[in-house]
Amino acid sequence: MNEVTARRARGGGGSARRAERTAVRMDTAKFITRNIPNFEILNEEALQIIEWNAETVLEEIGVNFLENPAALQRWRDAGADVRGERVHIPRGLARKLCATAPSSFTQHARNAERNVEIGGKNLVLAPVYGPPFVRDREGGRRYATMQDFRNFVKLGYMSKWLHHSGGTVCEPTDVPVNKRHLDMLHAHMTLSDKPFMGSVTEPSRAEDSVEMAKLLFGADFVDRNTVMTSLVNINSPLTFDATMMGALEVYAAANQAAIVSPFIVGGAMAPVTVAGTLTQVLAEVLAGVAYSQLIRPGAPVIFGAFVTSIDMNSGAPTFGTPEASHITYGAGQLARRLGLPYRSGGAFCGSKLPDAQAAYETANSLNMALLSGVNFMLHACGWLEGGLVSSYEKFVMDADQLGTLHHLAQGVAVDENGQGMDAIREVGPGGHYLGCAHTQANFKSAFWRSDLFDYKPFETWEEEGARDTETLATARVKKLLGDYQQPALDEGVAEALADYVARKKESMPDAFI
Amino acid sequence: MNEVTARRARGGGGSARRAERTAVRMDTAKFITRNIPNFEILNEEALQIIEWNAETVLEEIGVNFLENPAALQRWRDAGADVRGERVHIPRGLARKLCATAPSSFTQHARNAERNVEIGGKNLVLAPVYGPPFVRDREGGRRYATMQDFRNFVKLGYMSKWLHHSGGTVCEPTDVPVNKRHLDMLHAHMTLSDKPFMGSVTEPSRAEDSVEMAKLLFGADFVDRNTVMTSLVNINSPLTFDATMMGALEVYAAANQAAIVSPFIVGGAMAPVTVAGTLTQVLAEVLAGVAYSQLIRPGAPVIFGAFVTSIDMNSGAPTFGTPEASHITYGAGQLARRLGLPYRSGGAFCGSKLPDAQAAYETANSLNMALLSGVNFMLHACGWLEGGLVSSYEKFVMDADQLGTLHHLAQGVAVDENGQGMDAIREVGPGGHYLGCAHTQANFKSAFWRSDLFDYKPFETWEEEGARDTETLATARVKKLLGDYQQPALDEGVAEALADYVARKKESMPDAFI
Repeated sequence: MNEVTARRARGGGGSARRAERTAVRMDTAKFITRNIPNFEILNEEALQIIEWNAETVLEEIGVNFLENPAALQRWRDAGADVRGERVHIPRGLARKLCATAPSSFTQHARNAERNVEIGGKNLVLAPVYGPPFVRDREGGRRYATMQDFRNFVKLGYMSKWLHHSGGTVCEPTDVPVNKRHLDMLHAHMTLSDKPFMGSVTEPSRAEDSVEMAKLLFGADFVDRNTVMTSLVNINSPLTFDATMMGALEVYAAANQAAIVSPFIVGGAMAPVTVAGTLTQVLAEVLAGVAYSQLIRPGAPVIFGAFVTSIDMNSGAPTFGTPEASHITYGAGQLARRLGLPYRSGGAFCGSKLPDAQAAYETANSLNMALLSGVNFMLHACGWLEGGLVSSYEKFVMDADQLGTLHHLAQGVAVDENGQGMDAIREVGPGGHYLGCAHTQANFKSAFWRSDLFDYKPFETWEEEGARDTETLATARVKKLLGDYQQPALDEGVAEALADYVARKKESMPDAFI
Repeated sequence: MNEVTARRARGGGGSARRAERTAVRMDTAKFITRNIPNFEILNEEALQIIEWNAETVLEEIGVNFLENPAALQRWRDAGADVRGERVHIPRGLARKLCATAPSSFTQHARNAERNVEIGGKNLVLAPVYGPPFVRDREGGRRYATMQDFRNFVKLGYMSKWLHHSGGTVCEPTDVPVNKRHLDMLHAHMTLSDKPFMGSVTEPSRAEDSVEMAKLLFGADFVDRNTVMTSLVNINSPLTFDATMMGALEVYAAANQAAIVSPFIVGGAMAPVTVAGTLTQVLAEVLAGVAYSQLIRPGAPVIFGAFVTSIDMNSGAPTFGTPEASHITYGAGQLARRLGLPYRSGGAFCGSKLPDAQAAYETANSLNMALLSGVNFMLHACGWLEGGLVSSYEKFVMDADQLGTLHHLAQGVAVDENGQGMDAIREVGPGGHYLGCAHTQANFKSAFWRSDLFDYKPFETWEEEGARDTETLATARVKKLLGDYQQPALDEGVAEALADYVARKKESMPDAFI
């Protein structure tokens, strides 16, 4: 398939030489570049109303920048009306500040073949982020550990349709809170060669992320290039806290990318209506992105929108719902009009198990995200139970489905081969196409094929144990982890990273909150 | 919710009076009218190429009308070049003949509240059609019986988001082949008051369908109105057999609707490329619809496209794949340009079980069908194992998901209430929306909610047995069948139908092939 770049595990050093001897062929798809239109759910009038209202929110209601006098001063200097911690942004100012943010940027990986271009018609896929629990069929639901974290990084590295190693693929709860970012970064940097995310849980941890990236890529390279994309959530409604803004400040100053992302359960953190939620999302992103450009004009930044609906009976967030789709489609249009890369979507579901509910909800979300024009999709695989759980089985189930997005995005070829008129002539009424020349020439790349699902005859399937999808996924997890081979890394770099982690850990007492 | 019409079981006669006493409130949604755009995957140039090529196919290659001298004569009279059983249709002729077919029509139900409008921006949902097997969790996979058939008609009648009772919801293999259409029609006519489909397996069975419809609706009413929509498959590639055309002739002459539908597994019955398949689909539909208009100009007819891909490793048809989506999106554009209602999509999957594979594949298909502009979706619930199995559990799982299509299709309201500016003002930065006036006024209708899925807290879910979706669905099937109450029917009509069925059955020996 033309979007797939074949590669081999490469060597340098003892373990690398062993890898070379037993190398398994590993395919990784290039990030998606859409050759299909986006789905535009809002008309021009609706877009203008929402954009007008968002500016009204910024000017009239304003946004809070908490415990951050420097931020308030920056806003004052930029022309905002600051009252206490409330920043009132005059109509048009935030949009004007956003104009210096790039519409697209390259995030570099240590393996240059894995570099991703975030923006434009592209879609970059990254795994689940944040769950404190993991689940697999044999071990059930349990607190996540650093061993789980490493396993998920390995699965991500082995997944053909995944372009990005992500960030907190699960929370390693067995490592102290103030030290786990070091182990997590070390895992991404050494167990995978795909691009990754930095820590945001404290400004000092963002600084550690930049320092470790400099060890991996070289300080000069990091000064000149973007090598991390990190997740900066907004405390919706309309609140920017000092922790997240502190991380944003570190990354923007270092020219590293941040996703500025409202985190919204509709009806709780935003109005219960779609247009109202879009208004608040746009206001929040305008303020957050504008602030990033006050730190460093031109710093790469992404228009984020994590949005879902709520079950008004139980108060539980719900996923894969029509209203979440409406918001995601609409936010994509707003992001494109603002000229910013767009982050949204994911393998979202509320189900406790990787069952049919999980798959319906997830497929609803994934399809919608592709057609929404999303450029960076966090949570693209492995998300379970409303984001409380990283699921081993669902990770490989979702990662397989991501292949459908690649093929959908290719669009329809109408060249001579695509038209297939010679085939229709050759076969004629009543014939069949399986053996014709056109089919023989095209069949290998014509249809997407799952690497996981069951396509066997009923009798064979039954003889082999009548396995359901979760059972097939359990086997695939084991196979991938068994086949895993660590990508080679310069020994000096590996030592420097290990040393940095050890030194920083020694410098602090453990903290578990 | 505004799209839902509440109704009660109504009475007349003894059983009806009992029904009245114990009446359960039953909601049925109105058919979907889209307030969102369609997804247009092909540009104007691609559409023109495909349309030009389809006409080339009709003129140069032609189509076969087998064992049907009257059809060949009709084509000759219309100006086609007929050689043997091959009909070569001059460029433009078929499209011209199609122009008399209505772009939209009403299919009447015996309960006028259940009438459906097929065409335009509407989407009518009907259940699975054709499987010889059924499956449920407790009984496993087995040949379908008339008892199963009646159960599926009851489930369809009870399903809020299903507008149509369908046709062969499963093949009742315990009834002789030459008599089962009588029992099936009788079940649709008496166990449900939703619109239904007629028999197509022989012209005489189509005639029985019309006769029974006249008993149910009155002969005058049937002469003046469309009360059945029936499925006429084309033997792709490019072949129209005497059985299917015989049924089409009966229905068109009686002004009853037919879906003219290529049945295509890509790479087997059509070229392995998307544009090639679309070319053949369009040629086949043009020929079939044109023929319906030769029988009776103005007869209601639907542009059908049953298309899926093939697994080139095993030869198995595959479902929910990107290529099937490409074809379905493209065929919708071709149908709209031809001014015909469009049938495609369905709850398609290849999985043997109602598991995650089934749900991923199904959700891919359902979402794509909504955005493709489908007007009539057969197989909208209950389809399992590539259409070999009608699944009880998947029937209610899919039927629940159809609710998401209703809500998606509503689009985004941007009136004052939708904008929600008062809510944003009331809540302000750092507040929450759960209690605000706008939320209170809107929460009941703001978000779609599944009637099946699990939204409970983890601990509650675990205490209640950690049930997966299939387990929840088993319970729902039992509940619906337990709550079922037969809709009242005039006693004279009921007797006439029973008498017709008995008389016809007596008039023929049993045949099982």
